[in-house]
Amino acid sequence: MTTPNRPGEFALIERFFKPLSRTTPFVRQGIGDDCAVLSPAADEELVLSVDTLVEGMHFPRHYAPAKLAVRSLAVCISDLAAAGAHPEAFTLALTAPELSESWLAEFSRVLAAEAERYGVSLVGGDTTRGPLTVSVQAIGCVPKGCALTRRAAQSGDDVYITGTTGDAAAGLAILQGNVKLENDLMADYLLQRFNKPQPRVQFGQALVGLANSVIDVSDGLLADLSHITRQSQVAAEIQLDAVPFSEALRSLPNQADALHYALAGGEDFELCFTAPAGLAPDIHKLAQRLAVPCTRIGSIVAGEGVRCIDAAGQEVLVENKGYDHFPQ
Amino acid sequence: MTTPNRPGEFALIERFFKPLSRTTPFVRQGIGDDCAVLSPAADEELVLSVDTLVEGMHFPRHYAPAKLAVRSLAVCISDLAAAGAHPEAFTLALTAPELSESWLAEFSRVLAAEAERYGVSLVGGDTTRGPLTVSVQAIGCVPKGCALTRRAAQSGDDVYITGTTGDAAAGLAILQGNVKLENDLMADYLLQRFNKPQPRVQFGQALVGLANSVIDVSDGLLADLSHITRQSQVAAEIQLDAVPFSEALRSLPNQADALHYALAGGEDFELCFTAPAGLAPDIHKLAQRLAVPCTRIGSIVAGEGVRCIDAAGQEVLVENKGYDHFPQ
Repeated sequence: MTTPNRPGEFALIERFFKPLSRTTPFVRQGIGDDCAVLSPAADEELVLSVDTLVEGMHFPRHYAPAKLAVRSLAVCISDLAAAGAHPEAFTLALTAPELSESWLAEFSRVLAAEAERYGVSLVGGDTTRGPLTVSVQAIGCVPKGCALTRRAAQSGDDVYITGTTGDAAAGLAILQGNVKLENDLMADYLLQRFNKPQPRVQFGQALVGLANSVIDVSDGLLADLSHITRQSQVAAEIQLDAVPFSEALRSLPNQADALHYALAGGEDFELCFTAPAGLAPDIHKLAQRLAVPCTRIGSIVAGEGVRCIDAAGQEVLVENKGYDHFPQ
Repeated sequence: MTTPNRPGEFALIERFFKPLSRTTPFVRQGIGDDCAVLSPAADEELVLSVDTLVEGMHFPRHYAPAKLAVRSLAVCISDLAAAGAHPEAFTLALTAPELSESWLAEFSRVLAAEAERYGVSLVGGDTTRGPLTVSVQAIGCVPKGCALTRRAAQSGDDVYITGTTGDAAAGLAILQGNVKLENDLMADYLLQRFNKPQPRVQFGQALVGLANSVIDVSDGLLADLSHITRQSQVAAEIQLDAVPFSEALRSLPNQADALHYALAGGEDFELCFTAPAGLAPDIHKLAQRLAVPCTRIGSIVAGEGVRCIDAAGQEVLVENKGYDHFPQ
């Protein structure tokens, strides 16, 4: 990797990021050389995912470094969760207009705490000057041949969602001043759901052997589910009245907004998955054991696309487009 | 990873980048899911390196997409070469103000050709909107415990450099209009050395078992060698008259510039390495077998730092600072 050379960059990286690099049985060599060296166990293989967050695009200008650190790692760890992997390591490509010591101190302090919580070691990176951009690559391990994917949903599967969706989108709307809530507790809850995503790492690992297909909800429930249906060459029917709402989302003044957020709002980092109907009792037990709310919201059927069905059994057309950085 | 959802982004990625994703015994799953799945052979481990190139910082504005594609991959593959690894895969985080089809077509066409040449498969990525930034992570494999590092140089080792250094810096100076050469052939050679770096991949792999320490020259010969001496806790003495110059570099009007480029100019992506003096015949044979020029330029001795010695045996002080994006 590009080696920082002058005392400035080198000293800052040494001081703020080197402490996040630890050797483990998996991480044989962390930062400080041309390459990191990673050694998965003989019966495991590696999964990896990369996510880039750009200022003004994925997070507002002057976003607190602490919040950016939390999000940067969470969005990427969530992909490992969707693959059923246990997180092991990550790399960080940080581009910033200038490296302020106070910014770096706060960013790295929180990044260290989050890395500790996920049990991941920083194994490499690059710092460059430019507009604020954080690109994280998360690396995890999974027993050989067991990585969960989007492409094995089967007709007859149940469709589930962990937790609730729409909260992060509502939180962002509050942050942007587009939605106002009287109840501060509810508003705080939604803001936290945007600012502190909690990837379902343990739950994802536990789905290995149960789920046929899994995706994490980053673009919106319907949009992400449509990736599963397309890549599995099946269709999904969602019972709208089964889609779980948080109490905070229910407290929104406009319930049409709430439904829109729940179906099309991104960034919740819940897991949407499908599993054979016969495994419903196992899914239920798993959810109880890990204390993760998990709701059956529909079924996989033959065909293509995602259909939403209301309480009267009628199909409802829902705008389900997710987020696209480059609309044409 | 963030899944592009609307037809715009999704279609462009599908069209331009999906063809670069191939499954191999190592790449069990490429792009198109939450994660890539990688499976190193039982007797190998993984090395990885990340490099970010920012417009206006690492490459000029309006830099041709073809050149950017070549550089993006080369700078990162060079790190794998320095670790003695064989390249297997890479991820691409591309941030661009807009995705023009013609830009993408050219970038991806050349990236595909380069990927083919190195034998690497694209296994993941992220496209985001923002200032033009390319972050590539290269992934390779090396027999377990054999990754070459910067930290095992021994007193008594010879210091070698492959090819010649300074050419890329001279090429950049020509590009920027700071240096003019009468001879077009020489100027073209130097420009090519900047625009089309050739990482020493095969040579790096062949150094496993011969070299004690290796680094690729990205910041400048002296700066990079000083990483070896610091991390190995030794010193190096460089014989200035042994440092090889290309014919084109020799043709520079100002020979002081030429020396400065050779010692402190970055981006040549040659390998600087140390090996026990007794292995000199093996290094010589290796260089002949792979047709890679390789020159002994000095020795590792006890102490610290890098000293430059002239033909008269006198120490010469050379400005050896490399490139730092964030000088303090």
